[in-house]
Amino acid sequence: MSPDLLLSRRDLAFLLHEWLDVAELTTRERYAEHDRESFDAVLALSAELAAEHFAPHNALSDANEPQFDGETVTIIPEVAKAVRAFADAGLVSAAMDAEVGGGQLPHVVQQACFAWFQAANVSTSGYPMLTMANANLLLAHASPEQVARFVPPMVEGRWFGTMCLSEPQAGSSLADVATRAVRQDDGTFRLFGNKMWISGGEHELGDNIVHLVLARVEGAPPGVKGLSLFATPKFVVGPDGALGERNDVTLAGLNHKMGFRGTVNTVLNFGEGAHLPGGAPGAVGELVGEEGRGLAVMFHMMNEARIGVGAGAAALGYTGYLRALDYARERVQGRPLDGKDPAAPPVPITAHADVRRMLLASKSYVEGGLALVLKAARLLDDQHTHPDQDERERAGRLLDVLTPIVKSWPSQWCLAANDLAIQVHGGYGYTREYGVEQLYRDNRLNPIHEGTHGIQALDLLGRKLVMDGGSGLLLLKDAVDDTIGRAGDAGDRQLKEHAFRLAGGLESLVRSVGQAWQSGDPQVALANATYALEAAGHVVVAWIWLDQLLAAHGKQGAFYDGKRAAGRYFLTHELPKVGPLLDLLAGGDQLFNEVDPASL
Amino acid sequence: MSPDLLLSRRDLAFLLHEWLDVAELTTRERYAEHDRESFDAVLALSAELAAEHFAPHNALSDANEPQFDGETVTIIPEVAKAVRAFADAGLVSAAMDAEVGGGQLPHVVQQACFAWFQAANVSTSGYPMLTMANANLLLAHASPEQVARFVPPMVEGRWFGTMCLSEPQAGSSLADVATRAVRQDDGTFRLFGNKMWISGGEHELGDNIVHLVLARVEGAPPGVKGLSLFATPKFVVGPDGALGERNDVTLAGLNHKMGFRGTVNTVLNFGEGAHLPGGAPGAVGELVGEEGRGLAVMFHMMNEARIGVGAGAAALGYTGYLRALDYARERVQGRPLDGKDPAAPPVPITAHADVRRMLLASKSYVEGGLALVLKAARLLDDQHTHPDQDERERAGRLLDVLTPIVKSWPSQWCLAANDLAIQVHGGYGYTREYGVEQLYRDNRLNPIHEGTHGIQALDLLGRKLVMDGGSGLLLLKDAVDDTIGRAGDAGDRQLKEHAFRLAGGLESLVRSVGQAWQSGDPQVALANATYALEAAGHVVVAWIWLDQLLAAHGKQGAFYDGKRAAGRYFLTHELPKVGPLLDLLAGGDQLFNEVDPASL
Repeated sequence: MSPDLLLSRRDLAFLLHEWLDVAELTTRERYAEHDRESFDAVLALSAELAAEHFAPHNALSDANEPQFDGETVTIIPEVAKAVRAFADAGLVSAAMDAEVGGGQLPHVVQQACFAWFQAANVSTSGYPMLTMANANLLLAHASPEQVARFVPPMVEGRWFGTMCLSEPQAGSSLADVATRAVRQDDGTFRLFGNKMWISGGEHELGDNIVHLVLARVEGAPPGVKGLSLFATPKFVVGPDGALGERNDVTLAGLNHKMGFRGTVNTVLNFGEGAHLPGGAPGAVGELVGEEGRGLAVMFHMMNEARIGVGAGAAALGYTGYLRALDYARERVQGRPLDGKDPAAPPVPITAHADVRRMLLASKSYVEGGLALVLKAARLLDDQHTHPDQDERERAGRLLDVLTPIVKSWPSQWCLAANDLAIQVHGGYGYTREYGVEQLYRDNRLNPIHEGTHGIQALDLLGRKLVMDGGSGLLLLKDAVDDTIGRAGDAGDRQLKEHAFRLAGGLESLVRSVGQAWQSGDPQVALANATYALEAAGHVVVAWIWLDQLLAAHGKQGAFYDGKRAAGRYFLTHELPKVGPLLDLLAGGDQLFNEVDPASL
Repeated sequence: MSPDLLLSRRDLAFLLHEWLDVAELTTRERYAEHDRESFDAVLALSAELAAEHFAPHNALSDANEPQFDGETVTIIPEVAKAVRAFADAGLVSAAMDAEVGGGQLPHVVQQACFAWFQAANVSTSGYPMLTMANANLLLAHASPEQVARFVPPMVEGRWFGTMCLSEPQAGSSLADVATRAVRQDDGTFRLFGNKMWISGGEHELGDNIVHLVLARVEGAPPGVKGLSLFATPKFVVGPDGALGERNDVTLAGLNHKMGFRGTVNTVLNFGEGAHLPGGAPGAVGELVGEEGRGLAVMFHMMNEARIGVGAGAAALGYTGYLRALDYARERVQGRPLDGKDPAAPPVPITAHADVRRMLLASKSYVEGGLALVLKAARLLDDQHTHPDQDERERAGRLLDVLTPIVKSWPSQWCLAANDLAIQVHGGYGYTREYGVEQLYRDNRLNPIHEGTHGIQALDLLGRKLVMDGGSGLLLLKDAVDDTIGRAGDAGDRQLKEHAFRLAGGLESLVRSVGQAWQSGDPQVALANATYALEAAGHVVVAWIWLDQLLAAHGKQGAFYDGKRAAGRYFLTHELPKVGPLLDLLAGGDQLFNEVDPASL
C-alpha cells in the first residue's frame, strides 16, 4: 500500500512545521542535535517502514489471528519481521535519553512517526507501543540497576513489555485488584493472581516479556492505595541481566476479539504453580518504584498510553478517510441532481453533496484528531523541556486536563470517520475485500481500553476540570481564548465568525460545568459527565481547528482551501452539536440517577 | 438462548394490543377469522421457533460463512433446517391471501412475528424474508398463471426468491442498469448481464431459486423508464410448473462481508453461456407485469423490503439491548460515587449513571425503532383494509412519507444501540465470546442495502415531503399534531411538557423544510438532505414515543415506569439534537455544493 493512503505527508508537514513549529524545539538543549531535516528524515523513514513492513500484513493478521495450542502462541511471521525492522531502525528508543542509546526525538515528532505505523497496522504496532511505554515507565521509576537490566533488551527489540492492570472481576475498578504480592527474604516478591485483557501477554516474538503488574502486598490497605507495581518477566532476569528460569506466569487463554486481532490478548495466571522458579511457588516480581505507589507509577504509563490510544484512533480514522477519498474520486455513479439526462455519462461520486458531506466530516474528524494528539505531544515536550518553569507547569497541567479528551475524542469521532468510510464505499465498504471494514472493527476497541469512555468522562468532569478550585477549566479557557483573540484580530471575516462561534461554545461550556457542580455533590454533578466530555471534546477540537486555520491564514492553494473547508465544516456543522449537550449538563437533569434499573 | 433475550414479549403485547389495538383489525373482513388469541398464538409460536431453530446457529453461521467451491455453495445444515421449520409452520404465507393458502394475518402482526426471527438470526431470516417479498410481488403483479407456477413452491419452502437490481457499475443508480432482455418468438425473453450484491443468489436450500431481475428490453429507452422485470429462475419452470433445464444463471463469486455472513451474497451472471437452455444463449426470463414498468413493480417489493430492513435493524438493536441489560444486572464492579469505601462490596453496574445512560438511550432507540416499524405495518394494513376509502388513501400516503424514515432511522439508531451494548459489556463486549459484537457487525449493513442512508434522504426531502405541493409534510404534521393535542389534553404535567417539546421540534421541521426549498432548486435544497432525514427521523420517533406514553398513561408498575423513563429520555435528551440539524437545513448552507473535491 502506498504511504499516501496511510497518512498525508502534506498535512503532517503542515501540522508539525507550520502549526506546531517543531523546529523551535531544537533551540532547547535536549533537542539541540536535531534540526528540521533530521525530523523529516525520521518521519520519511517511518512512512517507508510502515508501508513496507506493517501495511502489507494488516489484513493477513486480521484473518489469521494468534493461535494458542496449549503450549505456544503462534503469530504469523510477518509480525516478528515488522517489529524487528522497527527496532533495528532505532525507533523503540527514538524519544529516549541519549544515555540509554535513545534519539532524544521530541515527543511530538515521535508521535507523528508512530502514527504511520498505527495507520498501517494498528495491531502489529501494539507490540512496540506497549514495549516503549513499559521501558519509559522503567526509565522514570525503576532503579538504575533495574533500568540497566530491563531497558536495553527492550530498546534492541529483543524483549517486549506489557501492562497488567485489569483482572476478570476488576476492569475499570482498580480498587478491586486482588493479585497478591508476598515479600521474600531477598527483597523480591512472589505474585499470585489472574490478569485479564493483557495485550502482548504471551508470544514468541522475542526472548522475554516484561510484565508490569499491579498487585497488593500482603497486609496493604484495600483500595488503590494498597497497590504496588512489580516487574514480573516471563523468564526471571538475573542480577547480571541474564535470562534465568521460566517464571510462573502462565497463559490461561486468548481473548478472541472483533478487531485488533493481530495483537494477542491474553488472560495470565501468576503463581499458579505451573513453574516453580527457585523451587518455590509464586511468580517472581521486583518492586518498581515505592511500595503503595503502584497506581501513581502506572499512571505515568497510562497517560502516555492514553495519548497513544488517541493517536491510534486518529491514525485508523485517517487512513480510512484517505481510502474513502481515493475510492470516491475513482468511482463513477449517478448524475448531478440538476442534470438527470440518463444518456449523460455518470459522474465521480465526489460530485454528490452527501458524499462530500461524508468526506468533509471525516476530514474534519481525522485531521482534527491527529492535530489534537500532536498538540498533546507538543505539550508533553513543553512540560519536560520548556526553558521557563511556569510554562513547564502550565503545559503539564493543560495536558492533564486534555488527556481524557485526547483519549476519548478520536476514539469516538475517528471511529465515526471509519463508519463514514464504509458508507462512502457503499456495499463494497461492507466487504472484506476493501480494508475499511477492518479499520472500523479495529477502531471500535479504542473507546474501551485504557479507561472506557465513561471513565474518561468522570476523570474530566470529576477531577481535571475542577481540580484546585476549577483551575483546570480556567487553564483550558485561557488557552482557547488566546486562539479566539488572535482569530478575531486576524482581519478576516470568516476567521472572526469562527472565533465568535467558538467563544460562544466555550462560554457555554464554562458556565455549564459550573452549573453542573452547583450542588457540590459528585453523584448529582457527574450524572451527565459523558455529555461534559463530549461537549468539551467538540469545543477543544473546534479550538484546534481554529488554531490550524490561523496557521493557514493568507496561504493559497488546494491544500489550504481544504483546511479552510474542513475547518468551516467543524466550526459551523459540528460545534453547534454541543448546544443540546450543554443544556442538559447545565440543567442538571437527574434522570440517570432517578431511573429505577428494575424498570429497564 | 431464551426468547427473553431476543425481544420483550411484554413490550410486544403493549405495542400491539395497548398501543396499536390490533384486535380492532379483526372487525375487518380480511381478518375476521382472527382474534387476539390467534394473534398471540402465532406470536408465541414465532418466539419459540426463533429461539429453537434460528438463535442457536447464529454465531456458528457467522464463523462459518457460505463456501463456494466453484460448483456448489455450501451452507451449514442448520440453516436449511431452520428455514424448513419456518415454512412448515406456515409462516411464509402467514399474511398472504387464503386463496393461495395464506393465513391472512395482518401485516402488523406478521412483522412482529418476523422480528423474533430477525432478532434470533438476521442472516438466516434473510432467506424467507426475500422469498416472501418475492412471492408478494408476484401475487400483486404477475399473471394468475405465473402465480400458480411460482408462488406455491415458495410458500411451501421448496423454492426461494431473490431480487436482482444492482449491477457492479450501478448500485444506487438504477438508471444505469445494463442487463439486456432479448424478446423471443414464444413471448419469453433471454437475459444477458451481471448482477451484484444478490442475497440468496445461489445455494442448495431448496429445489429452485426465482430471481426477479431488472433488465432493459432491447430498444427500450435509457434510464429507469426503460426497465422491465423478469422472473428468471435457476431452473427453468415449465408451463405445468415442473422444473426443467438449468437456466443460464451462473454464480461468478461470493461477496465476503463484515457481518450478515450467514446470508450468502453473490455476483450472478445471466446469459454467460455456461448453460444453453433450449439450446440457445441467454437466461430464460418471463416478463412480470407490464413492459417498461419494471421499477414501479420492483418498488412494490422495495417498499416492503425497506420496512423489513428497518424491522431487522430494530430487532438486532433490541436483542443487543436485552443482552446488555442482562449483563449489566449481573456484573458487579465499582462503587457509588458517594460511597468510595474500598472495603464495601462492589455494586451491579446498573448503579452507575453512565451505564444507566447507555441502557436508557438504547431502550429508547430499540423500543422506539420497533414501535416505528410496527406503526408502519399498521398503516400498511389500513392502506389495504380500512373500511373508509379516505382513510385507506391517507394511510398509504403517510406510509409513503414515513418509509425512508422507517428504513433509515432504526438502521442508524438501533446500530447505535448495538454500539452501546458493546460498551456496556466493556472488554467482554469486544470479544466474540459475547454475541453483541456480531450484532454490531450485522446491523452495519442496514444503512447500506435497499437504498443507502443518503438515498433515503433524497427520497424524503426531494420527493416524499414535498410531493403534491408539500402535502406529504402536512400529512405528517397532522398525524403528529393529533398526538400532541391528545397529550396536551391528558391532564398530566409531564405529558404536557413532552407535547410542548415535540410541538417545537415539529414546527421547526416544517419551517426548515420550507426554507430549504425556498429557491426551488433541487441542487440547493438537497445539499443538506441528510440533515432533514435525521431530524425528521428524530421528530417522528419522538412522536412515536409520545404516542406510546399516552397508551401507558395512568398505568402503574415497573413496565410502564420504564416506558415513561425511556420516553422522557427520548423527548428531553434526544429530541433537542434536531435543533442544530434544522438550523443548518433552514440556513441553507451550501458548503457541500461549494467545496472543491480537489481540495479534500
